[in-house]
This record gives sequence, C-alpha cells and structure tokens, in this order.
Amino acid sequence: MSQLNETHDPALRSWVDSANQPGTDFPIQNLPFAVFRRTGCGEAFRGGVAIGDQIIDLGAAAQCGALVPGVQAIAAACGDASLNRFMAMGPDAWAALRLGLSRALRADAADTQRLASCMLPQAEAEYTVPARIGDYTDFYTSIYHATNIGKLFRPDNPLMPNYRWMPIGYHGRSSSIAVSGQAFPRPSGQTMAPDASEPDFGPCKRLDYELELGIYVGTGNASGSPVLMDDAESHVFGLCLLNDWSARDIQAWEYQPLGPFLSKNFATTISPWIVTMEALAPYRLPFTRPEGDPQPLPYLDSAANRKQGAIDVRLEVRLETERMRTSGAAAARLSATSYRHAYWTVAQLLAHHTVNGCNLQPGDLFGSGTLSGPTLDQAGALIELTAGGQQPVTLPDGDSRAFLKDGDTVILRGWCEQPGSARIGFGECRGTVLPSILGG
Amino acid sequence: MSQLNETHDPALRSWVDSANQPGTDFPIQNLPFAVFRRTGCGEAFRGGVAIGDQIIDLGAAAQCGALVPGVQAIAAACGDASLNRFMAMGPDAWAALRLGLSRALRADAADTQRLASCMLPQAEAEYTVPARIGDYTDFYTSIYHATNIGKLFRPDNPLMPNYRWMPIGYHGRSSSIAVSGQAFPRPSGQTMAPDASEPDFGPCKRLDYELELGIYVGTGNASGSPVLMDDAESHVFGLCLLNDWSARDIQAWEYQPLGPFLSKNFATTISPWIVTMEALAPYRLPFTRPEGDPQPLPYLDSAANRKQGAIDVRLEVRLETERMRTSGAAAARLSATSYRHAYWTVAQLLAHHTVNGCNLQPGDLFGSGTLSGPTLDQAGALIELTAGGQQPVTLPDGDSRAFLKDGDTVILRGWCEQPGSARIGFGECRGTVLPSILGG
Repeated sequence: MSQLNETHDPALRSWVDSANQPGTDFPIQNLPFAVFRRTGCGEAFRGGVAIGDQIIDLGAAAQCGALVPGVQAIAAACGDASLNRFMAMGPDAWAALRLGLSRALRADAADTQRLASCMLPQAEAEYTVPARIGDYTDFYTSIYHATNIGKLFRPDNPLMPNYRWMPIGYHGRSSSIAVSGQAFPRPSGQTMAPDASEPDFGPCKRLDYELELGIYVGTGNASGSPVLMDDAESHVFGLCLLNDWSARDIQAWEYQPLGPFLSKNFATTISPWIVTMEALAPYRLPFTRPEGDPQPLPYLDSAANRKQGAIDVRLEVRLETERMRTSGAAAARLSATSYRHAYWTVAQLLAHHTVNGCNLQPGDLFGSGTLSGPTLDQAGALIELTAGGQQPVTLPDGDSRAFLKDGDTVILRGWCEQPGSARIGFGECRGTVLPSILGG
Repeated sequence: MSQLNETHDPALRSWVDSANQPGTDFPIQNLPFAVFRRTGCGEAFRGGVAIGDQIIDLGAAAQCGALVPGVQAIAAACGDASLNRFMAMGPDAWAALRLGLSRALRADAADTQRLASCMLPQAEAEYTVPARIGDYTDFYTSIYHATNIGKLFRPDNPLMPNYRWMPIGYHGRSSSIAVSGQAFPRPSGQTMAPDASEPDFGPCKRLDYELELGIYVGTGNASGSPVLMDDAESHVFGLCLLNDWSARDIQAWEYQPLGPFLSKNFATTISPWIVTMEALAPYRLPFTRPEGDPQPLPYLDSAANRKQGAIDVRLEVRLETERMRTSGAAAARLSATSYRHAYWTVAQLLAHHTVNGCNLQPGDLFGSGTLSGPTLDQAGALIELTAGGQQPVTLPDGDSRAFLKDGDTVILRGWCEQPGSARIGFGECRGTVLPSILGG
C-alpha cells in the first residue's frame, strides 16, 4: 500500500492559485487523472491531470519539456485517447509521474511557464470514459445494503450465508458505461406484479440509482496466476464515483437464478476523474470485522489489510429534479455516508477476483456495490431510503420521490477530509433520466 | 433472415479439391471466418476463410486482386487482427464477400492462380480469438438444462417462473475467453460442504464443461435504441462452438443472489471458426412452443421467427483422457444433441438484450447456454449426465468420470447435415484441464 511521502505534505501550495483555495477538490496533493478535450471542437481526447480549476495536458507537457526527463516518457503515454498504456506501466511509473507533477506545480518551482502553457480550464473541457474497460465487475461490499435490499427481495432470507465469507460480485456491462453527464431514456422491460399470473411489459416504474465507487485495475495478471493479498493493491490504479442505475421492478422478476441483467446494463455513470490510490494514502483506516463475524480466510487476509485496508472516502447523493431546475433551487441531499463502512476492502476484491486464475487487464473496472452506511439515512439507493417505495422521501420544495421520475438528475460527490491532511476530492458524477422511448 | 441463394446450391464444387471431399466441415457452401497466422513464426494475425483444408488470407487476396473489385475493400477489412471492422460493415457486405468468394472458388472459375497464392494449409496455421469481444453475455436457452440443473441446485424449485417468459442471461467475462487449444489450471476457490459450518478453500472438486454455441454480434445498436425482432438477425454475424467451463462446487456456494462469478470466469473456450448466419440458411426450422407453454410477449415474437427461428446445428461432446492419449485410444463421445431444441431463438436473445436500451457492439459474443436436449443422454454437461456426480459415466476403456480430472481434454464438435443440402461444419473446440497450481 502507498506510504505517505512528500507529495502528501498538507503544507504544499501550488503556483496555480485555484489549487490553494479552501474546499477545492483538486489541490496539489490530489492530482487525479481524466481523459478530456476542449469542448465541442472535435479534437482528440487525451489524458490530463486536474490542478485547481485547470487540466494539465500530459502529452503536451511531455512534448514541450515541462517535466523532468525521467517522467517525460510516462507523461507521453498519457497522451493516448485512453489511460490503459499508462495504467499498465505500474505503480513505480504512477508514483514517478505524481512526484514529477507535484514538484513542477509547487509554489517554489523554478519554471512555471512551460507547464502553464499546457493547461486548459476545466470549464472549457469535456470528458470521456478514461480507459478502455475490457471487463466491468460489480461487487456488493456493503453489508448494510445487502441486508436492506435482501429484506425487500427475500424477506425470509435477507443476507445469504456466503456474504460474510467472500466478496460477492458479478460481471456487468462495459458498453453502457459513460462519463458524468450521461442521459438515458427510462428503460423498458418485463415486470411481474405480486398478484399477477402473467408478466407485464412497459417502462420501468421503479427506477433507482446506486451510490458506488469504481475501482480501476492498473496492472493485470496472467490467466492462471492469482494475485496475493500482499500484492493486490499494487495492481489498483485508483478510484472514481460510480452510479449503478437499477430498474428494481425488472430486477425482481429477472434476477433468479443467474443475477441482475437488463435491470442494470442499460446505463452506468462514472466520474471523469480517477483519484489515485497514492493520493488516498492519508485516509487509510484499519479493516475490522464486527464482533462475532468470521475472520477472512487466509487468501483474503494480510497484516497490511488489517492495519489499513479501509479508506475513508465521504460520499453523498444529491437529487436535482426538473422542478428544482425550473425554480433555480439547489439540488437536495438524499444521503451521505463513507466508504469506510465497506465489509470487504479493495485488496480483498482483487485477491478474490483472481484466486481462481481469472485474468484482470489494465483498465478493468470494479464497482464497489452500493455503499450504504450503518443507519438508514446513510443508504445509497432510493429503494432503501423509501423502504421499497413505501415511504417516499420528501424534498425541500415539498415534492417527493419513491423512485426516480423523468428529468431527475442524480449527482454523486466524494471527498476525503480530516485535520492535518489535504482535502482530496473526486469531483462529481451526474446522470439524468430521460422519458421512455415508448412515451406515456 | 438469410434467404437461400446461389451460394447455398449443394451442387457447387470447388477447384480446391479438399473442399469437395465428403464429410469435410468446410465445403464451398460454408466459408466460415477465423483469425489466423502461420504457426510459430510471430507474424501478424489476420482474417481468413476456410475452404476444404485451406485458409484464404483475405487481406492478401484483396491486395493481389484475386477478388472482383466490389468486394476488394470488404476483404481488405478482414486483413485486420480482428474481424470487428468487417463485422460492423453489416449483412450486405458480408453477403457480397461470401458471393465473391463463392464465385472465385467454384470449379469453373476463370482465374484460380491468384487466389491459390493467398492460401495457407490449415495444418500450418494457428488461431486467435477472432474479434475484440467487448462484452460477453451468457444465456440459458435450454429448458432441459435449466430444469436438470435446477433440480440439483434447488430441488424444491427447479425451473424459475420467469424462465418461460424471457431468455434468462447474465454477463460473463471477456478476458478469459480463448480459442480452441486453451489449457488452464484447475481453479481454486471457496466451497461449502452440505454438512459444514464453515467454507473450505482449495482446488475445485467438481469441474465441468458446458456445451454451448457462441453467437457473434455483427452490427451494434445505439444506446437507448432497442433492436426489434424483425431486424434482430440482421445484427448477427454468425455462430461458433463455445465451452463454458464451470466449477460446480464453487458455483453452488457463490451464486446467490447475484449469479455465477468465479465458478465460470476462469476460462471459456471457443472454436476459431465463425459460421455465418447466411451459411446456415438451409438449416432453419420453425420455432414452436410446447403445448400449454405461454406464447412469447410481442417484443419477442415475429412471423419470421415463428416460421424459421430455430437452427438445426448438431452438436456433440467428446472426452479425451490422459489415459486415452497414452494408449492411443480415440476420444469417447459423451453426448450428442441439436441446437433445434433451444427454448429461445437467436433473434429473441438479441431483441431481449436490447429491449431496455442496452447497446451492443460489433464483436460482442453471446453464449447460448448449455444446449441439453430433451433426453438425459443429450445433456450438455457432466453434472446432468452423472446426476450431480452420483452416477459416473463409464468410458470405453473402463475408466469413469463423475467430473473432469486433470489432463482431460473436452472436444466440442458441431455440424449441419440433411439430404439435399451441403454439410456445414464448425470444426472443433478443444480445451484441456491442467493440474491446480496449488498442487495436490
């Protein structure tokens, strides 16, 4: 796991003024990655790093010699239209580029002009999915979510006996993952009403979001070669925000026995920015098990994981309805929680995924699963907040929601914050529900 | 759906003698696609078409002017290291290349020398996965398999109520799909013995194969735009053989509630050759429902599908053990069946997959699900043939199998055959179980 080093020093200031403003998501201690281009001009997408309200064009920075020679070639790899080649270079390369950027961006840097000429204001940029995601795996790492949703889908059997023994996961759809700003029509499908003898077909009536973190695989593993716990985090590049949109009525009818399918694969929204594991080093926490729960099997256990397997990423969900947009009201916060409550750590997800010899590849994405916290107001999905739609959430303007309506925009935010460390932000992940193409 | 045309004429003969031999998988009426190169010389993989015991190098054929001008550009696209660009060109391009090749290969073709110079004997070739498979979806289209396996996993509830209403499917792993010849170590994982209070960890004890067909998406659809039944088959490029290796003991413990994961994603083997939907036109059959079963909902129904939605591909599984290889004995046939027994058609799988707006992309792969036929000797997996391992299969040399042993090679074969039509073969799909990396 990443250790604290000079790049984490909370006293560091940048010559990019906006990076020193209190509350910025992107101070010099963060340096997250995205793939961007100037909005609406049709130029090529390429990799960049956020600093304050600017983006450093890494390919351009490599070309104009704005970085020290040792990291030029690494930065040049980020000039591709996806970060896969850079991700495949591994943690030493990631750390070298981070250190090079950190030094070049500090207030006392000797030469600022060349790097300044390679920046674009974030306000003028658009983003795309930052990696070619070969495979996308969604996990289920909040025991609170698993229990809450299990009660609704299987009242007599909410938490399966396997849950406390292994990170439950399943494969999701790569093709429908899109970056913040995604808008998609309400999906249609088969549903079965509780008292019906035949299924119905039509637009989803119980459309929901799921508050998750995405986890990018950096370096892969060969087929047949499991990654051990002690090596697992060195294969992880970083984290993003992820909204696993879910059609609950379609899910309830289709999911047995092979799992969710059309209820999930119509859309998944991710934040453009990937916060590196190294940037998160100040926010690591011990991984513990509740009293009485089984300890992880040896292949899911390590001293480092026990000591600092968890990560304290604060998370919140906001809802902006059509009515709020019309009236100019601010988006309403629906819930807030932290990734620290996850039952399984990033390292455990990766070790479990590969223990059977399954090969991971650079750019593969894991979803954490819905990150509901211990109390109901920390729930990461409407189906939990509203007790299956029975108790609609009341919004500040008097409107209410049992499930999502057309025109609703869901906004996920994430950040790390604690005294003595710099704030590390994730930006936002925003997606909007459009009316069904069937009308009505 | 493809209509019969001059390329299907069973009287056609080729100037490539081996294509006229009775029993060949690759007569002039077939013309399946693969991606190949000369074995062991490190040259680039590129697309080819089988004729008899030869492969036509399509990029080379385009370059040397061996094809009529209208199809040169189409053949040139097949010179890529994957067929995605050709698949994306759509059914008119696929048909034009097929017609061009058919005419150039006929016994009465004027110029044979240029095309002959672009051929490589299959005996000198090696193959790779013929498309960049963005997403792999595995279905469950044999009601006999679903019932047989359901009885073993859920004795009280073998066939879920949704089964007869929708094609059940789930997302699988793309990264571990490999072409015939794949060999992989026996996977390890968690299992829970029936009477145990804690799971065990170790090499899989109930390793199985699954006899499936793979279905390649040719042209995709935009996100939010479902493909209707009448258009569905025009999006399908062709079929291959597929072995969905399965670790039954890992599966039983992990699969609830989100479906199979590590029990499946360690390896999937496909045949190198893709038989086009057009080549299969003579073997189409009506799609029918058993008396008393519900008719498909309108979005899964069409006149063309009722008339000829099914395909009569004969299938068989053979097992070659280490002992057979040592003694020189032939591989033993474990079962034989036909794709005609599938409960859902190719068009229905594609229409269902996209009805929620999920976008498919060229090169995406569907698995049909295990294609067990109506009787137990037509079962497509050992778990069915052996009643969950209780009644081991006896092999011709006196050996027996409840599940697969190390060194076992499973060979899938497929072909279409009927009086008045040319035989259309799929070649073979072969994969081998290696010992666990844990030893023992």
